[in-house]
Amino acid sequence: MKQNFVITSYSNPTVRLLRDLHDKRTRQREGLFLVEGMRLITDAVRAGHKPVLVAHGPALRFQGILREVFEVTEAAGGHVFETSEEILAKISRKDNPQAVVAAFAPWDLTLDRLDLHRHDMWLAVEGLKDPGNLGTLLRTADAVGAGGVILLDQSCDPFSVEAVRASMGALFTTQLARAPWDVFLAWAKASSAQLVGAVLEDAQDYQDIHYHAPCVIVLGNEQSGLPEGYRLACTVRAKIPMYGQADSLNVAISGAVLAYEVRNQFRR
Amino acid sequence: MKQNFVITSYSNPTVRLLRDLHDKRTRQREGLFLVEGMRLITDAVRAGHKPVLVAHGPALRFQGILREVFEVTEAAGGHVFETSEEILAKISRKDNPQAVVAAFAPWDLTLDRLDLHRHDMWLAVEGLKDPGNLGTLLRTADAVGAGGVILLDQSCDPFSVEAVRASMGALFTTQLARAPWDVFLAWAKASSAQLVGAVLEDAQDYQDIHYHAPCVIVLGNEQSGLPEGYRLACTVRAKIPMYGQADSLNVAISGAVLAYEVRNQFRR
Repeated sequence: MKQNFVITSYSNPTVRLLRDLHDKRTRQREGLFLVEGMRLITDAVRAGHKPVLVAHGPALRFQGILREVFEVTEAAGGHVFETSEEILAKISRKDNPQAVVAAFAPWDLTLDRLDLHRHDMWLAVEGLKDPGNLGTLLRTADAVGAGGVILLDQSCDPFSVEAVRASMGALFTTQLARAPWDVFLAWAKASSAQLVGAVLEDAQDYQDIHYHAPCVIVLGNEQSGLPEGYRLACTVRAKIPMYGQADSLNVAISGAVLAYEVRNQFRR
Repeated sequence: MKQNFVITSYSNPTVRLLRDLHDKRTRQREGLFLVEGMRLITDAVRAGHKPVLVAHGPALRFQGILREVFEVTEAAGGHVFETSEEILAKISRKDNPQAVVAAFAPWDLTLDRLDLHRHDMWLAVEGLKDPGNLGTLLRTADAVGAGGVILLDQSCDPFSVEAVRASMGALFTTQLARAPWDVFLAWAKASSAQLVGAVLEDAQDYQDIHYHAPCVIVLGNEQSGLPEGYRLACTVRAKIPMYGQADSLNVAISGAVLAYEVRNQFRR
């Protein structure tokens, strides 16, 4: 390992770059996004991603646990530097920052990278707004054994700090793609996928539907659910019964309840 | 309705009070919490709560839709005032504030207010940290037809701005209580409730368990799951199968998947 570089100035350009990765335009311009904490960074590295920048606090100077990360970074031409907890707090924009943060390059999210037939189930979501919901959907897709998550049309940025945090590492272990609805529809129909639209009315009880692989659960966004044309294009429309006064479930909750029903049918 | 009061100064004590309701100590000292937006405020009023303060933007001055809220507020001795969008943004601490915000008094959360036998299912969660998860659990409890949510031990504040936002009104339609574990355990055992502990190992597949009413799903917190003593005190331990690389689900997702399994068994 090379000599430690130590950065102690808030105005250092690398520190400012890392801080500015909270901003979508900076992420796009620099081709980088921020990952915080030992666990997420090692998840990313084990999934084959190579950090471009790693900043760690002084307590970690002599710890071996991050050696793999440091070596991968430097072997790929990236930079590792040490800094203060105050600067890590500035970068993370929170009071108790992780002891290490890293910047990675985002990867290609085109739909044709995904092989629909390699998995029996997928999640798709239209126009998702909230990065926390996106992270939770990725984490749920991983747990339920789905192939991954497809973001339809305009959605929030999966490489935002909030989405990365909420995914708890599933961003690195679960496949992710982004596509306009018509591209997605052609892709799904070409594989004779069963498209299961999650809707609130004019639908079958989700437990009365016979699911078959490959199955794509299609979720609407937080505000307005699935547009009518999208609903009608689905193979079946599934409704989760609701007994209270609320008229909808959180989108990540709907996705999980439907996905586990599909998984339960497939495993029995 | 009385004459409109108009407040245009950031330093007005009422404006500062509303702003400071983001802070837990202010909420406790003042005995008030903040509810934003027409929909949540009318949900609260329809559930029988009376606003102590209502602040609305100028566009609402001549709208009838909030009349019920204004009348209830003033009849109960509360105050309604008009203010600017800039001040509403300061109060909400976000750029696009709701056109109306209100302060309500929190209510009694002692466990003995809840009649366990009036509902076939409840959710309980130990040491919950994240107000977004709390709001989502409340919303899920409402949808699945559970009696409500019981917060065990120390948890985040259900009256925080974030929890109120995430509950989407379920805070007002779903019962909520707070209790130490031993008080909860005595309460549940006295009613012969089935305590279903959500755990990751040494547990039955959640679909192999026969659930019976009254059933309480007991969830651990985001970091560490259920403490061992709590797990052992449960009637059964349920595990949701996971197929990916992640070792856990989000707590609100686990709660929803388990709760819908219980509901599905009960309804068939």
